[in-house]
Amino acid sequence: MAPTRIKEPVITLSAGPVAAFPRVLRAMARPVHYDFDDYFQQLYEEVARKAAKALRAPQPALILHCEPAPGIEAAAASLIGPEDVVLNLASGVYGKGFGYWSQRYNKELVEIEVPYNESIDPQQVAAAFRKRGDIKIVSLVHHDTPSGTINPAREIGKIVRDHDALLLVDAVSSFGGMDIHPEDCFADIFITGPGKCLGGAPGLTVMAVSDRAWKHMAANPKAPRASVLSLLDWKDAWSKDKPFPFTPSVAEVNGLDAAFEQYLDEGPEKVWQRHALTAKACRAGIQAMGLALWAKTEAIASPTTTAVRVPEGMSDADIIAAARAEFGVVLSSGRNETKGKLIRIGHMGPVAEPIYAVVAVTALGGALRRLGRKVDVGRGVEAAMAVIDAGRA
Amino acid sequence: MAPTRIKEPVITLSAGPVAAFPRVLRAMARPVHYDFDDYFQQLYEEVARKAAKALRAPQPALILHCEPAPGIEAAAASLIGPEDVVLNLASGVYGKGFGYWSQRYNKELVEIEVPYNESIDPQQVAAAFRKRGDIKIVSLVHHDTPSGTINPAREIGKIVRDHDALLLVDAVSSFGGMDIHPEDCFADIFITGPGKCLGGAPGLTVMAVSDRAWKHMAANPKAPRASVLSLLDWKDAWSKDKPFPFTPSVAEVNGLDAAFEQYLDEGPEKVWQRHALTAKACRAGIQAMGLALWAKTEAIASPTTTAVRVPEGMSDADIIAAARAEFGVVLSSGRNETKGKLIRIGHMGPVAEPIYAVVAVTALGGALRRLGRKVDVGRGVEAAMAVIDAGRA
Amino acid sequence: MAPTRIKEPVITLSAGPVAAFPRVLRAMARPVHYDFDDYFQQLYEEVARKAAKALRAPQPALILHCEPAPGIEAAAASLIGPEDVVLNLASGVYGKGFGYWSQRYNKELVEIEVPYNESIDPQQVAAAFRKRGDIKIVSLVHHDTPSGTINPAREIGKIVRDHDALLLVDAVSSFGGMDIHPEDCFADIFITGPGKCLGGAPGLTVMAVSDRAWKHMAANPKAPRASVLSLLDWKDAWSKDKPFPFTPSVAEVNGLDAAFEQYLDEGPEKVWQRHALTAKACRAGIQAMGLALWAKTEAIASPTTTAVRVPEGMSDADIIAAARAEFGVVLSSGRNETKGKLIRIGHMGPVAEPIYAVVAVTALGGALRRLGRKVDVGRGVEAAMAVIDAGRA
Amino acid sequence: MAPTRIKEPVITLSAGPVAAFPRVLRAMARPVHYDFDDYFQQLYEEVARKAAKALRAPQPALILHCEPAPGIEAAAASLIGPEDVVLNLASGVYGKGFGYWSQRYNKELVEIEVPYNESIDPQQVAAAFRKRGDIKIVSLVHHDTPSGTINPAREIGKIVRDHDALLLVDAVSSFGGMDIHPEDCFADIFITGPGKCLGGAPGLTVMAVSDRAWKHMAANPKAPRASVLSLLDWKDAWSKDKPFPFTPSVAEVNGLDAAFEQYLDEGPEKVWQRHALTAKACRAGIQAMGLALWAKTEAIASPTTTAVRVPEGMSDADIIAAARAEFGVVLSSGRNETKGKLIRIGHMGPVAEPIYAVVAVTALGGALRRLGRKVDVGRGVEAAMAVIDAGRA
Repeated sequence: MAPTRIKEPVITLSAGPVAAFPRVLRAMARPVHYDFDDYFQQLYEEVARKAAKALRAPQPALILHCEPAPGIEAAAASLIGPEDVVLNLASGVYGKGFGYWSQRYNKELVEIEVPYNESIDPQQVAAAFRKRGDIKIVSLVHHDTPSGTINPAREIGKIVRDHDALLLVDAVSSFGGMDIHPEDCFADIFITGPGKCLGGAPGLTVMAVSDRAWKHMAANPKAPRASVLSLLDWKDAWSKDKPFPFTPSVAEVNGLDAAFEQYLDEGPEKVWQRHALTAKACRAGIQAMGLALWAKTEAIASPTTTAVRVPEGMSDADIIAAARAEFGVVLSSGRNETKGKLIRIGHMGPVAEPIYAVVAVTALGGALRRLGRKVDVGRGVEAAMAVIDAGRA
Repeated sequence: MAPTRIKEPVITLSAGPVAAFPRVLRAMARPVHYDFDDYFQQLYEEVARKAAKALRAPQPALILHCEPAPGIEAAAASLIGPEDVVLNLASGVYGKGFGYWSQRYNKELVEIEVPYNESIDPQQVAAAFRKRGDIKIVSLVHHDTPSGTINPAREIGKIVRDHDALLLVDAVSSFGGMDIHPEDCFADIFITGPGKCLGGAPGLTVMAVSDRAWKHMAANPKAPRASVLSLLDWKDAWSKDKPFPFTPSVAEVNGLDAAFEQYLDEGPEKVWQRHALTAKACRAGIQAMGLALWAKTEAIASPTTTAVRVPEGMSDADIIAAARAEFGVVLSSGRNETKGKLIRIGHMGPVAEPIYAVVAVTALGGALRRLGRKVDVGRGVEAAMAVIDAGRA
Repeated sequence: MAPTRIKEPVITLSAGPVAAFPRVLRAMARPVHYDFDDYFQQLYEEVARKAAKALRAPQPALILHCEPAPGIEAAAASLIGPEDVVLNLASGVYGKGFGYWSQRYNKELVEIEVPYNESIDPQQVAAAFRKRGDIKIVSLVHHDTPSGTINPAREIGKIVRDHDALLLVDAVSSFGGMDIHPEDCFADIFITGPGKCLGGAPGLTVMAVSDRAWKHMAANPKAPRASVLSLLDWKDAWSKDKPFPFTPSVAEVNGLDAAFEQYLDEGPEKVWQRHALTAKACRAGIQAMGLALWAKTEAIASPTTTAVRVPEGMSDADIIAAARAEFGVVLSSGRNETKGKLIRIGHMGPVAEPIYAVVAVTALGGALRRLGRKVDVGRGVEAAMAVIDAGRA
Repeated sequence: MAPTRIKEPVITLSAGPVAAFPRVLRAMARPVHYDFDDYFQQLYEEVARKAAKALRAPQPALILHCEPAPGIEAAAASLIGPEDVVLNLASGVYGKGFGYWSQRYNKELVEIEVPYNESIDPQQVAAAFRKRGDIKIVSLVHHDTPSGTINPAREIGKIVRDHDALLLVDAVSSFGGMDIHPEDCFADIFITGPGKCLGGAPGLTVMAVSDRAWKHMAANPKAPRASVLSLLDWKDAWSKDKPFPFTPSVAEVNGLDAAFEQYLDEGPEKVWQRHALTAKACRAGIQAMGLALWAKTEAIASPTTTAVRVPEGMSDADIIAAARAEFGVVLSSGRNETKGKLIRIGHMGPVAEPIYAVVAVTALGGALRRLGRKVDVGRGVEAAMAVIDAGRA
């Protein structure tokens, strides 16, 4: 006998993977074509070009056929050579994590770490360069998802470029949900993926890589080749006239095509606006219920994820389970150091719509109440609605 | 203006990625659920168990979230330690290729190589063990796709097990299309994927790993961790109670679920039978047109891919292009050493149906004729039909 | 240039067609098979049997290949002969409408009409039979969707059967969302469709027809044949051994298959429970905001649709437009006589989940406020949540 | 236990419903939107305009929400009034059938009937008008599918228009597969549907209706209203500002959108060309195997369906069953008067590709041989290939 099936969620407000757009899901059901056939080769080039258009990047995007965590590992392996001093900027779990990858390859790791509810101060970066003129590579997580906080990528990027170092930016869960692009922030490797703000499925990494970064990788004697960790293997694979080093994930590429079409058709500014309004409404509702945001200041709270401090004496797992059981609404916990300390509400892709701020406030508030805490959900909803109403005016 | 779209293929008879079953494509359009939600965790465990059922393996299967080429790289990286002597069996491009990966990690590589239209003789393996008692790991490609030839995995596996070495078997393009399973051939790591005989999309690797192999990996001081190359990271990820090291490719897992359901619902024996009959009919048709099979003997020709020698003085690319232009039929070329020497016709997944042998014979024969060669296609079709008719009797 | 695309709705809470289950949508993408092929013939019979199982009816269901409005027209045309006195029970727009169809075919129409926010009193039916012993057919709309009210079908049905008359029941928007089945209410023709509580697409009619009704139709000299209005043409079409009078809507049948599977897999009692709880929460929220239900008493308010009286001095169209613009939420207006007087919120199929009661309250309350009316939405949400919380306990 | 599932067909070459384009199937899986929401209203108008573009008609097309058989019944009911003399042109089962519908409504039926393997001679039509100056309506089936024969619609249409009569043309299985449009052939009601040459699903009727026909219907005192048989009810429903008389089949409309996009994107001329070439190759192959076409002359054989005479002493059902069992290929039988006399091979939608002519020849030839008849299939395939090769040159 089949095991009792857990009931499918009603509404997913996770921090990713997020609910995908119906259009993307349908695209993933397109026929699987042979990767060496001209039809797919042409499609692949078109997708790489659409990605570049969305990224506002000059060259067709680099697509890696794994989700962004291994994609970032591959970027580290490819870019960082045995002579490189790396400055790692850690304002959260993902930022900290990059340092561990870096240390496998770098000559030396320099790190700036701030509490995981704060963001990196560009002046710290400038100071680091003053102290260490030999910093060659700087790594930054734009939106450290496990904290729901945003770093000032543009300001940091300017400093890095002024010092002629290379900048790697993880914008996996911010690109597509706010105004951030590789050239704006002087990124040499800018990394994102379809499974967050673009409302696609996880399974690919999309990168914009500068000529400077390609040159550095080409000169890196340890840069992997014939490997899933190699960026260089895939450098020219976007071209319909070039072979693939291994089989691309055909269905994911079809889905990516639709994710970028959705984004470009809707209009990036409109997409960012609905992410921002949803998050703002959510924050207002959360705070009106007497709960605290995780982010030290609202200014650094992400427009794509709202992290809420777990109330004293309560368990994140219990809260998430109660929201799921009572309303069928899926929320996310923290990760590693932030695990147990916060609950995350995703505003990405198709649920980056203000009505879902009301859903989030209700589900979180209702769950807390179910667990015995006094919460004025009505007040939370009213606060969220006031933001929405002002935003629509 | 949009570029002129290349016409979509009519029928894909490639050596993979192959046309996927409609049922798999629809499954890839299922909602993307949050990987940490119980619903997906339960589904993932079910898929791992379905995979094990199909593999006739005792433990839930290991799923890696990349296609089999990097999956095999990961297996090499994880299994082969700095103290290991590896015997690599190379009867084709993929077999040869594994040796290069092995050499990154092994103490010493011993290799048996045969011409790429032949198969490995188990006696050679026995002899190698006699010469080198210290061989710890043996690697074998069961179906070397770029050659369309099958190696005697069971016989070789028996010898390896008798010498207490570990066996890695690449059955990517044979499993699901013929009677081959990890325990039959004493494989310690048995590797396949959804994008070939199962008629799924490429993008995942499915493995059966023995306890002996897990123990060896655990003892390997260089086995990657926190890496896309790590098998150990994913060892327990099948369990609904265990976290994922990084985000699994949710849509691909949904597709894999359907691919295994299709296989198990249809009945493995029936699936193998239609692969075998299609390939046999195709070989008969090819030979009746005066063309030569690439495989030295028909006994080692794969039931999932038919490799045909490119006639003297002709170009594989021209032939493939002519079949595509004249009939909309997609065929595959060789790879590396076999490139230019053969044309491959895939009989995998939904096109492993005898009528497609007729399509293949017509498309290949017609293409050759288009290019000026005299070919009796009618005779080829008649020969294929005779096989089909006998097979249906 | 393409016209500016209207933004796709975010959440549809209409009174039907309603949002379809993803599983149904995927089923509609199954390959289109030839209707005369055994594969489809078998599938069709299976679907007719699944429908019967869901309807708790003894015979495979009758499927008509048009949506229920023409389906009901066909039932009237087929059942009602020139010698038949028909008692039509009108508690709403759809009930009233059936009388017009009846009059095309009947000898005489007798009608009981009540205000469109009330329901039929079974005693009135009993009285009608006392006055007119020659009533042969009684027609009843179980849930008159444009009013959101439920009639006491079982009690009425008992009376009709006791008088040996035939009963036609329109349960289009109630079946699948509450406990109502043909045999429970003594229906001779019981009509429903996939596009309401089952969460399917509109485009088919599903009927349970009693032997008594078939006999009456067979004896009706004016019953249409070779016509879209004929039920008799399709009487045996469910059987895999019988031909179809015209081409069935293959894709709709595929979708219907999935809609019934969804319903049976989830469990009818569970499905009704989530419809009931959602509606109850919605009604509580609506009333807590100071708005009035359309139904005269809550006891007759449908568990599948909540009709809300349009506040004095306001326009239904403005309210619907405001909910759509502010939140992307789709609501329904009334129809004909109820148009302008009420707003309808559907609780059918996938949105018959309590969290959508909160969405509805927010969207309706927010829309009213946007139009200048004072509404305490927070109070409404709290009231809805209290019901949900009690229902989950 | 589930009954043993009949194996799904491998390739469907039926005379309709035909295999649908993947793009259409995916479109049918689009979300079901509320028909009164602006989004769907706009889409509906766009689809009606796309249909008009494909039909080369001046007004948005009329869409009826049932498949073409009832659609044609509705056209007859709406157009033909009690004062109308109708000339029915019958060269096959469908043409003959229209006469029966006509007789329900007309004053008098005049009929020209020719053997069902011939086509109507325009001179007969001219003669009929000379004899009966009071003919008001002429009905013609352009492609009488059960015969696979084409009538000279343009020539006949010219004569009808010259006599100021109204012309109804059933082009259900020819439009989209050859060069035929309402204005070319002076049709006042031109009827087609998505489930044939357009490669869509069955379930809708698409019509182009002239102003003259609308005027005639408006003046017809018996034209149905508030009925599935009414064309007038739907006259303005295409407009995004007008309501629907009953719920449209939302998913079918989504599919129709994709079917017309596919047709217009590919280019009508190219679409007709592949239908014509496939049919021509098929006819050549059939005849080379010593079989006889049903059509009296090849000039009237349809480019969308090839009807083959059943060889003396054989059974159509046996042949169809053998092609299905041996190759998984689905063929069609005749209908009514042509049943038992011919086998039909469809060349419509995605299988209107020359390689499927080879499949058809193989499947039919192989089936005959299986049943004991001597057939030179190789010769048939060679003949088909010669046509394809010439057509591609």
